[in-house]
Amino acid sequence: MKIGFIGTGVMGGAMALNLIKKGYSLNVFNRTKSKAQTLLDNGAIWKDSVKDVANSSDVIISIVSFPKDVEQIYFGPEGILENAQRGSIAIDMATSDPELDKKIYEQGKKSGIAALDAPVSGGDVGAQKGTLCIMVGGDEKVYEEVLPILKAMGSTIVYQGGAGAGQQCKMANQIALAATAMGVVEAFAFADKAGLDREKVFKILSSGGADSWQLEAYAPRIFKKDFGPGFYIKLLVKDLSIAKSEAKLMGLNLQALNLSDSLYQGLIDEGMGDLGMQALIKLFEKD
Amino acid sequence: MKIGFIGTGVMGGAMALNLIKKGYSLNVFNRTKSKAQTLLDNGAIWKDSVKDVANSSDVIISIVSFPKDVEQIYFGPEGILENAQRGSIAIDMATSDPELDKKIYEQGKKSGIAALDAPVSGGDVGAQKGTLCIMVGGDEKVYEEVLPILKAMGSTIVYQGGAGAGQQCKMANQIALAATAMGVVEAFAFADKAGLDREKVFKILSSGGADSWQLEAYAPRIFKKDFGPGFYIKLLVKDLSIAKSEAKLMGLNLQALNLSDSLYQGLIDEGMGDLGMQALIKLFEKD
Repeated sequence: MKIGFIGTGVMGGAMALNLIKKGYSLNVFNRTKSKAQTLLDNGAIWKDSVKDVANSSDVIISIVSFPKDVEQIYFGPEGILENAQRGSIAIDMATSDPELDKKIYEQGKKSGIAALDAPVSGGDVGAQKGTLCIMVGGDEKVYEEVLPILKAMGSTIVYQGGAGAGQQCKMANQIALAATAMGVVEAFAFADKAGLDREKVFKILSSGGADSWQLEAYAPRIFKKDFGPGFYIKLLVKDLSIAKSEAKLMGLNLQALNLSDSLYQGLIDEGMGDLGMQALIKLFEKD
Repeated sequence: MKIGFIGTGVMGGAMALNLIKKGYSLNVFNRTKSKAQTLLDNGAIWKDSVKDVANSSDVIISIVSFPKDVEQIYFGPEGILENAQRGSIAIDMATSDPELDKKIYEQGKKSGIAALDAPVSGGDVGAQKGTLCIMVGGDEKVYEEVLPILKAMGSTIVYQGGAGAGQQCKMANQIALAATAMGVVEAFAFADKAGLDREKVFKILSSGGADSWQLEAYAPRIFKKDFGPGFYIKLLVKDLSIAKSEAKLMGLNLQALNLSDSLYQGLIDEGMGDLGMQALIKLFEKD
């Protein structure tokens, strides 16, 4: 069996390497070839286009940044759906629009290509260690078929339901974590203004009902003024925008989501999209 | 040494019992005497008023519900400050207004009474087990003097700074946890509307960046439609209101705090103040 892998950036590169380590043979393509070099050094075969990956692989995995990139690699004469063989399986592991993945699923069905949406969480460290969370939408039988492949990349893998359900679960995840991040940042903005010692406040917050992954991961970085990613603000806002439009489609008014989206969008407007999400504290500290 | 204990409700009763277990002898008073019965059965001495507790104890601990109750037991001719002996120490363990505790501290100083603010977190379970978080404001020397007493009630005890700093730390804590709770609730509102399985979504959220104490404690209760306290909405809104007025005093605009306060206030307006804070999900589910 050949696995095609499209998108070998920080996340995809580490995930693909784990597949190689588990013995899978890979065809790879990336817009910037140099970013695939480690994989090629480890035995992956370079392909010159999405099309070439698609028509030479049994399972085609893609992880690219934005929905428009997903659209580009799936649709059109050079895309996965046009060029993959009947009976192949395409897995979109980017965080993307559930509606888009439903469309891919439907169109794939017509061409005999099974499509799954399988976005991940866990960041670059999870990708490297093979401990990602993977949330999967699509046909359950297809999910079961590729489960061994997913297990090479993640440790918590949950089938969520039909096409788009993986993306929807990811949206729920992002809604929760963005609100939590707001709370962490406002707590320290308050503590700072009150003249409290951040480390002492952290000791209390991390010991009880205010504790969270966001607090544990980002408060120490905030204290050190380390605003690098981690998780890019521009990608978080992409996710929150998708969540907002999904919520709108469903007739849901999620005020904390709207607020987190608007606060983070404000940082992008000030040129901070390439910082990590802990830079939300910059709403309150100007240096 | 005699410890006076005022306010023997769910929290205070359990905390006072831990003091008795550690060998301290207690004078107790509570508005409703029956709630002090367990303590009396365990050797505590009943006093008929705040005044009687104050003038017969070396350390006077109080934990009552609202700032107006704190005001009532501290000030006026029947209050702690008027009736405690010179050299005694008064510890306000309620979650209350930092400005009020600063006032108590200043007025106590004039009468030779040392005052600490030492609000707690950790809920009824923490109170029972003696594992509360206690955040302390006031003079550090006084804090050190009563530390053995605090250790009988809590396991994470952090001196935060001058008078009011304990309360301010508690406000930071509540700001963080209320925003987190909004995120948890909106995530499941979204998941529900998308038709996802709550347990499967929980499995993902609890495994990564969306994980939090709020998620772990309250999602399972939300799933079981268990809306009992836990932590009363009416008390949370008290805390958030104090935090809001403190933030205003400091010239801080905390939008997530404002939002959580207004959402929870909305539940109180609908008669849900006696439910636990996980009942925020009722914004989205009407049954």
